[in-house]
Amino acid sequence: MIIIKVGGGEGINYDAVCDDITQLWQEGQQLIFIHGGSHRTNQVAEALGHPPQFVTSPSGYTSRLTDRATLEIFQMVYCGQINKTLVERLQRRGVNAVGLSGIDGRIWQGPRKKVIKVVADGRTRVLRDNFTGKVTEVNCGFLQNLLDTGCLPVLTPPAISFEGEAINVDGDRAAAATAAAFHADELLILSNVSGVLRHFPDENSLIPQLNANQIDQIAEEYAQGRMRIKLLGAQEALAQGVRRVVLGDARGEQPILRALDGQGTIITQPQAKVAS
Amino acid sequence: MIIIKVGGGEGINYDAVCDDITQLWQEGQQLIFIHGGSHRTNQVAEALGHPPQFVTSPSGYTSRLTDRATLEIFQMVYCGQINKTLVERLQRRGVNAVGLSGIDGRIWQGPRKKVIKVVADGRTRVLRDNFTGKVTEVNCGFLQNLLDTGCLPVLTPPAISFEGEAINVDGDRAAAATAAAFHADELLILSNVSGVLRHFPDENSLIPQLNANQIDQIAEEYAQGRMRIKLLGAQEALAQGVRRVVLGDARGEQPILRALDGQGTIITQPQAKVAS
Repeated sequence: MIIIKVGGGEGINYDAVCDDITQLWQEGQQLIFIHGGSHRTNQVAEALGHPPQFVTSPSGYTSRLTDRATLEIFQMVYCGQINKTLVERLQRRGVNAVGLSGIDGRIWQGPRKKVIKVVADGRTRVLRDNFTGKVTEVNCGFLQNLLDTGCLPVLTPPAISFEGEAINVDGDRAAAATAAAFHADELLILSNVSGVLRHFPDENSLIPQLNANQIDQIAEEYAQGRMRIKLLGAQEALAQGVRRVVLGDARGEQPILRALDGQGTIITQPQAKVAS
Repeated sequence: MIIIKVGGGEGINYDAVCDDITQLWQEGQQLIFIHGGSHRTNQVAEALGHPPQFVTSPSGYTSRLTDRATLEIFQMVYCGQINKTLVERLQRRGVNAVGLSGIDGRIWQGPRKKVIKVVADGRTRVLRDNFTGKVTEVNCGFLQNLLDTGCLPVLTPPAISFEGEAINVDGDRAAAATAAAFHADELLILSNVSGVLRHFPDENSLIPQLNANQIDQIAEEYAQGRMRIKLLGAQEALAQGVRRVVLGDARGEQPILRALDGQGTIITQPQAKVAS
């Protein structure tokens, strides 16, 4: 099983992504495809008069401030526009894609974090009525049933809280939870950068290989903004037995095949380094 | 099997709709729930600078002019905001709802009508690059598999063309096609009017009962705007063996239970009239 997460930043080549997925699918590879939609969400939120706001947690992770209005705009773009145009692209290529959020069939369930702490101007503040959370349970039975009937699940946040509320969850970490739940061989996390960069945004400073034990240090020293949470997702997946995580580039041609071929930052179990 | 279609006009009581669905579901009733989203789509389309336009066919049916940009806004609202907030409401009530469009798993398939004729100011014009069509095939196997595993399908347009393009289809007629494909006992088509009115919008002029043979005449004489296409949907469902169609009211409390109880306009097979 391969779990493929493609981010929603600017410059993603969705046609190339769908070409690669089609090829793997036709070769009989078991896949689950997970996507984001952040760039388009920002545009729509601006246009609807509810501009996006981002907050930073005391531990240094950046996330979208999600009140109820933001959540519904988020759903419009992630579950509506992006999910359905990806399903359409895949169906046109002959892949029987089925687009779902984590709410549907409680695919992704977890606790809601109603109150969050954020850091702004060096001060910590408490925010309430927050609609975010994290995925702690993956409904593998439901997804396996889709796979067994020849369908490709195309998944997107939000997830659902234990109390039945839609919650914005990080897509990279949801992908990691899914990879862990399926004991996947590979987790690909593709975005609009070429991998982990020593000197962001200098793409010549790509770190080609890491092992799980090095993640904390690299995240601390080098990883900027969104890359930190991708490294956290990679760490969570590897800790739960996923064999290999590739942080790769979804711009350009053959983004998935290139990542499988090792282009990007490859992160393996600690023993893999010893073995090499 | 009961097919429940709830429109997307202003004033729909979605909480009451979900309460009724939960009650029926808990009683073991097999259901498929289909919804619209027109009112909210109009608002979002305005806000995004692509205001809605409606066209009238030479045979007198009104529909949304759907270019590609409109289609994507349509998907945002129908598949994103409305579908997911309904799934969330049902999940919160303990119903294992799964929200899908007609694109997913090719649930609703049919021909695209790329070129349409419209009537404006008494003249007929031809419009190209149109993304509408109609449902001629329902993937019952896929839906039955969901039902068999304890899931409630929550369906919404668009559908998918035979060439794999997303197409805007009329939700009432898609519901009729679904009811026909499942040999449903009942098709409920609920909206923000109380049924077929002799003198629209006078709700005291409700026509409580019709048989299928009377539909053409009633549509010609009395039905305004959106009600004509609901009558067409009813006619199509009855012609394919659905026992009873109720055009009812989704405002107020217990909208589905009231419709099942016969409130609204009940339309039956022609022989039913003879038998009564």
